[in-house]
Amino acid sequence: MHIGELVTNDGEGGAFAARPDAALVIAKGRVAWSGPASQAPAADSAVDAGGRAVLPGFVDSHAHLVFAGERSAEFAARMSGRPYQAGGILTTVAATRAATDDALRANLARLVAEMARQGTTTLECKSGYGLTVADEARGLALAAEVTPEVTYLGAHVVPPEFAGDPAGYVDLVCGPMLAACAPRARWIDVFCETGAFGADASTAILAAGREVGLGARIHANQLGPGPGIRVAAEAGAASADHCTYLTDADVDALTSARVVATLLPGAEFGTRHPYPDARRLLDAGVTVALATDCNPGSSFTSSMPFCIALAVRDMGMTTQEAVWAATAGGARALRRPDVGHLGVGARADLIMLDAPSHVYLAYRPGVPQIAAVWQAGRLVAGSIAP
Amino acid sequence: MHIGELVTNDGEGGAFAARPDAALVIAKGRVAWSGPASQAPAADSAVDAGGRAVLPGFVDSHAHLVFAGERSAEFAARMSGRPYQAGGILTTVAATRAATDDALRANLARLVAEMARQGTTTLECKSGYGLTVADEARGLALAAEVTPEVTYLGAHVVPPEFAGDPAGYVDLVCGPMLAACAPRARWIDVFCETGAFGADASTAILAAGREVGLGARIHANQLGPGPGIRVAAEAGAASADHCTYLTDADVDALTSARVVATLLPGAEFGTRHPYPDARRLLDAGVTVALATDCNPGSSFTSSMPFCIALAVRDMGMTTQEAVWAATAGGARALRRPDVGHLGVGARADLIMLDAPSHVYLAYRPGVPQIAAVWQAGRLVAGSIAP
Repeated sequence: MHIGELVTNDGEGGAFAARPDAALVIAKGRVAWSGPASQAPAADSAVDAGGRAVLPGFVDSHAHLVFAGERSAEFAARMSGRPYQAGGILTTVAATRAATDDALRANLARLVAEMARQGTTTLECKSGYGLTVADEARGLALAAEVTPEVTYLGAHVVPPEFAGDPAGYVDLVCGPMLAACAPRARWIDVFCETGAFGADASTAILAAGREVGLGARIHANQLGPGPGIRVAAEAGAASADHCTYLTDADVDALTSARVVATLLPGAEFGTRHPYPDARRLLDAGVTVALATDCNPGSSFTSSMPFCIALAVRDMGMTTQEAVWAATAGGARALRRPDVGHLGVGARADLIMLDAPSHVYLAYRPGVPQIAAVWQAGRLVAGSIAP
Repeated sequence: MHIGELVTNDGEGGAFAARPDAALVIAKGRVAWSGPASQAPAADSAVDAGGRAVLPGFVDSHAHLVFAGERSAEFAARMSGRPYQAGGILTTVAATRAATDDALRANLARLVAEMARQGTTTLECKSGYGLTVADEARGLALAAEVTPEVTYLGAHVVPPEFAGDPAGYVDLVCGPMLAACAPRARWIDVFCETGAFGADASTAILAAGREVGLGARIHANQLGPGPGIRVAAEAGAASADHCTYLTDADVDALTSARVVATLLPGAEFGTRHPYPDARRLLDAGVTVALATDCNPGSSFTSSMPFCIALAVRDMGMTTQEAVWAATAGGARALRRPDVGHLGVGARADLIMLDAPSHVYLAYRPGVPQIAAVWQAGRLVAGSIAP
């Protein structure tokens, strides 16, 4: 029962909060009580944390998990500066289209289980490697088997069969593909970037999604400055993701439109772009989330602890800010008040660390420290053994 | 039996070498045969790697594991730029002196087990948090319980009781402390740095160690330029560790004196110093090793995979060079021909990854991918389940 540090994120306005020497009571899959260990009420069964830290489960609000194949050779070539003739995202599109449902399902299940072992209890999952009506719908159906946070990303790139007619592809994304996909998704996303989709197309795609009830999110300003943040603010997007290259006007737009900035340091690690400046965003009052961007091209990490360590080392975040961003921040990016914190009534998604405090996630980078993981009060990974 | 990629490091002169679709035969704790899976001889029992990669176990040639206490608050303060009144190494010295043998042994055992789970099958372990005759001897006796690669580091810093008489402390390190420690150690090390020990003291300490049969290693050029590399070359040291700030003359000295440069990127991660330039060293023909520097102050990672990922991302190493440095490189830094490779006759220390190739250690940073670990042919961590 003795929790060395209980991170609850139920400070004023949902701010980071932690209590030493704490206990937590779970009933019906929800947090029923938390407080000093010395005042813990009786319970049917008890787990002794032995002084270890307990945190809300991680909320990974940006992941591309429905795919086939891998791109390790492309990664190795990029890292060593060798030229590599590869299709990038389109390599994965070809492999994904050719894969059976069962092959995609097995790869997805493997990644979801891997994420659970690393403390992720809520995850978002995008399509975007199908890029035909049938393949996008299939990707979303598979994603819906593992999470309610399903995102339609038909607008990932223009597929080769529309290379000469990108406007035609936007029409498909906003028309028949959207019609097939919307019933299976909660969110719509667009890769707004030079070489993918411009401001007008991105605006049209998010608007089409909104008309059929999908919330907006966006890949914005990843590889260079661009209009993505402005598009996100105008569309009322829940989150603008990447935010690597921002102008002062972009920062102002995120603040005033209350768009969450979801930072994905795994992508900068995997591409050697500069890390996004979280400090600047936090100082401007922007809500910051951290997520993995798990995908086989630019960021094949599934580790939220790794992202936290990078955020502290390279993005100007304190350990408290980084842990908050990886839990409550992700929850805000998904507009999910029930997760990302351990206030009374929250879903009992929690992590027990093999460590006495949340600081260790950055203090001990790369070390697996997730001892046990519960989802809605049920142990889903690890063990409670000391 | 089917190994997707078998990394053997038995190329010409012990260079990186790997074979696809391979098998490996172990007898009496040693590698008896390796070659194409199709030609594998019969064996008493067989493990099916299911296409996964098998590598030599990691050789972590630089670790400080005999200590008590922790310094997470100091770490958090350093990362956030806040001032923090702390004694650095001396904080750990005070906690270590005050700890019981059993407390030190339990902390050490926990770290060694954690390293094994992450694929480390040979580790070096230093004293250096005792700094009295009795406490240094105790640290080495504990280290010797877990590894033969025991290093006497009485010359870590000058302890407070010698603050006014650093020369007196050097006399102690070279005299009674060495006499008490030498029987328990294989190596002698010195922290040659401004604020620790200068060139003359470092030279004297390594020479005193050599006289009683201890091999030389050194902490050199970590926090700024200095004489450490020159001292290492003149002393015939097996390894110069850190090598963060090097002149061209330093690089030449490493090459001509055949001193291994052991790079410790966890320390740069934990202190925000620039990463050492492995590319420059490799291009000059220096033998490079990677190690964790696991210690509670500057680098509390125990993860060789994390160090490999940093080396590829931030130090200009290819994935092959980084994996070689973390295995064969570490073995050379410890002058251990029996480990770090899987040539016939090598100790059967091996790792099976949850991945098809060694590239994944950098391609999937932060993700625990060590499926199973064998030491001298015996499974010591993980499981062979697919």
